[in-house]
Amino acid sequence: MMKNYVSRIFQPFTSIPKHANTSKQEITSKSQRLMLELGIIQQANPGCYHLLPLGLRSLEKIIKITDGEMSKINGQKVVLSTLVNKALWKTTGRLEETQSELFQLKDRHNHDFLLCPTQEETVTTLLSNIGPISYKSFPLRLYQITSKFRDEIKPRFGLMRAREFIMKDLYSFDVDLKSAQETYSELNDSYDRIFRNIGLDYVKVLGTSGNIGGSISHEFHYQADIGEDKILTCSECGYSANTELSGDCSCPKCKSKNINISSGIEIAHTFLLGDKYSKPLKATFLNIKGKPEVLQMGCFGIGISRIMAAAVEVMSLEQEIRWPDAIAPFNVIILPPKFGSKEEQSTKNLSEKLYTAIENLPNLKDNILIDDRISLTIGRRFLEAKRIGYRFIIVIGKTSTENVPLFELNDLKLNIQMHLTESELLCYIKDNLIF
Amino acid sequence: MMKNYVSRIFQPFTSIPKHANTSKQEITSKSQRLMLELGIIQQANPGCYHLLPLGLRSLEKIIKITDGEMSKINGQKVVLSTLVNKALWKTTGRLEETQSELFQLKDRHNHDFLLCPTQEETVTTLLSNIGPISYKSFPLRLYQITSKFRDEIKPRFGLMRAREFIMKDLYSFDVDLKSAQETYSELNDSYDRIFRNIGLDYVKVLGTSGNIGGSISHEFHYQADIGEDKILTCSECGYSANTELSGDCSCPKCKSKNINISSGIEIAHTFLLGDKYSKPLKATFLNIKGKPEVLQMGCFGIGISRIMAAAVEVMSLEQEIRWPDAIAPFNVIILPPKFGSKEEQSTKNLSEKLYTAIENLPNLKDNILIDDRISLTIGRRFLEAKRIGYRFIIVIGKTSTENVPLFELNDLKLNIQMHLTESELLCYIKDNLIF
Repeated sequence: MMKNYVSRIFQPFTSIPKHANTSKQEITSKSQRLMLELGIIQQANPGCYHLLPLGLRSLEKIIKITDGEMSKINGQKVVLSTLVNKALWKTTGRLEETQSELFQLKDRHNHDFLLCPTQEETVTTLLSNIGPISYKSFPLRLYQITSKFRDEIKPRFGLMRAREFIMKDLYSFDVDLKSAQETYSELNDSYDRIFRNIGLDYVKVLGTSGNIGGSISHEFHYQADIGEDKILTCSECGYSANTELSGDCSCPKCKSKNINISSGIEIAHTFLLGDKYSKPLKATFLNIKGKPEVLQMGCFGIGISRIMAAAVEVMSLEQEIRWPDAIAPFNVIILPPKFGSKEEQSTKNLSEKLYTAIENLPNLKDNILIDDRISLTIGRRFLEAKRIGYRFIIVIGKTSTENVPLFELNDLKLNIQMHLTESELLCYIKDNLIF
Repeated sequence: MMKNYVSRIFQPFTSIPKHANTSKQEITSKSQRLMLELGIIQQANPGCYHLLPLGLRSLEKIIKITDGEMSKINGQKVVLSTLVNKALWKTTGRLEETQSELFQLKDRHNHDFLLCPTQEETVTTLLSNIGPISYKSFPLRLYQITSKFRDEIKPRFGLMRAREFIMKDLYSFDVDLKSAQETYSELNDSYDRIFRNIGLDYVKVLGTSGNIGGSISHEFHYQADIGEDKILTCSECGYSANTELSGDCSCPKCKSKNINISSGIEIAHTFLLGDKYSKPLKATFLNIKGKPEVLQMGCFGIGISRIMAAAVEVMSLEQEIRWPDAIAPFNVIILPPKFGSKEEQSTKNLSEKLYTAIENLPNLKDNILIDDRISLTIGRRFLEAKRIGYRFIIVIGKTSTENVPLFELNDLKLNIQMHLTESELLCYIKDNLIF
């Protein structure tokens, strides 16, 4: 694999003046501003964003973590058609309820389509189209990670409330309610693992089912002031729920007034659907007696692109991005000396050598960068690296010319600077990077 | 990684009766019929398909090959917004030309959008939005592998002419025409490597630029009778071109009448665009003197989902799919004996053991399946495996109970059956699988 160099990464810095006319591009959150300014994303239309190379790298790490956990619970990956016949949504009664949030269009034959925001109807039809298959084929868990569309009345916070976004949606099919409940609980555990792997604290609360429906529902949240949901947590009994469900005066479980209300950004939502979709759309299976019965369903969403933005929102400083280690575009950046400096000649190839040593550490292959723009001062490159939020910034400076070279290692998370030998540096990175 | 079992793969067989009413689902090609029947894809609407687990596995292999080659030429991966402002396409004059093939829609504010079939306008605007950056940042090569949309007047041949399809599109930016030509030639070489890696014979011909435009254009084709393009190849001088460009009577280069006309399925198309988009959309860079100049562009498409269908079309038999080894959903399937048979007890765990041995061969990790549906006869499972087209079908039969177990190895490509010891079998697979 070739080495990664900053000069070869497209990352246009676009500083947005503080008092700029924001009519074209409403800046409504810190993460949105930072990601736009630092070339992680670019706005295409209100609520629609291009993911630039660094943004996509982070996103692909979230996808990889998700795929890994899905394979453990035998989630099978598919891609469902985005263009969906409007009639399908009429059958389930969802067209009326969600009308205004749906992007709708006609094809050249004047047939009505919509761009899917979620695909309960589609995947249920997939099952009913093949006719009832044996009970032996279940549980069945189909998922996809694809672009979804929602005509938000007020797109905001960048990727957090976008009109075009990347969502992971899994749909489960079981032969009875008991198995569906087991699936529901297995999937919730698997979501816990995904969020633990991402590494940022989250809360899991009872949720409201909204227009998706069903009997049980859980939400996963990152806590942040700009979060649009209010979450109640009871200090007495530990009960936790969205206040839409619990009210916000006392704990609905133990009646304690000793409660805590905080704001949350919803990053995942799980639903035990029952037969809300399988019944009207006739998705059945053959039971042990060979008779068709209606399938029981669940659905499980994760806001893949929203997680990236929400994590940046929660962790960042006002002028500097911070990432969870597991989903940072890169973990380590090496800054060689400025062109023409005293150090430049005597440290030739030192950064390349260090790069090779670091990429052999666990999980670090392809997660290192060299900032080879040596016409710029170390100071200038250091400030940029800090703003973009690479966890470890290594400076090849004066101490690198000593007999036993010492490297300046900056750990942005712990906010410390050290001078270490190569082997000390390797140990430090290995011990402190969390995956 | 867990082992792969057939019982855990969602692959609904739906046989389509020969004289079925095809009004709902027009079957227009062998690959479309086989992929529908064998549960590789399912039709959602005319020209829109769901990719089921086996289909997506094949697609992801094509994507991996493409990503690998793109990284060699410093192609940087992005995701561009699918919803694009119609006004952009007016600026370049393409709205009029392609109107009828575009899916168009309005958002809730009555703004006009289209679903991108290709993104020259979008990516050029991405560059012009950031203002001119230094000549040092070029060449720049941005690419994505995403769903695209085209309201085909006659969707047909399944994924080969679909209304929703997965395309890889790369856009190159250079500071002058000479560099753009070098990029063009580098990209064409890289496409050659991609198609060599896929492993199916292809032809590369001079192409027509159509509504995308530009001065040079090449097309890559798989040759097949149902191909919609006609390709001329000159037996005298080797010149090769789409007959739209060359006519079809004689070689435009050497005037020879000794020519060959064949049908081709276009799987990739490259264009040297020049300033067709960068000029009207004002995408500029700063030259060495600090003055803005218009960028020179190229664009390079690969029909990712079309390649899968076209390869199946070219290689398959009338009733059995065949895949190029490099993009087959799996390469090896192991069939353990039927439940209750004599062999069943004495060969316990033999298939699991063999699986482990095979997955340690180069490139075979996660490319093996065990057909664990042992309530079915070997014969039934064998026929299914043959129809789906797994290159190597291993039967754990009578000869597996011998002192030195012999396995029945069927090589579908060479159409031979052998009885081999474990080590012979491993050698055979290793030597004959082409990646």
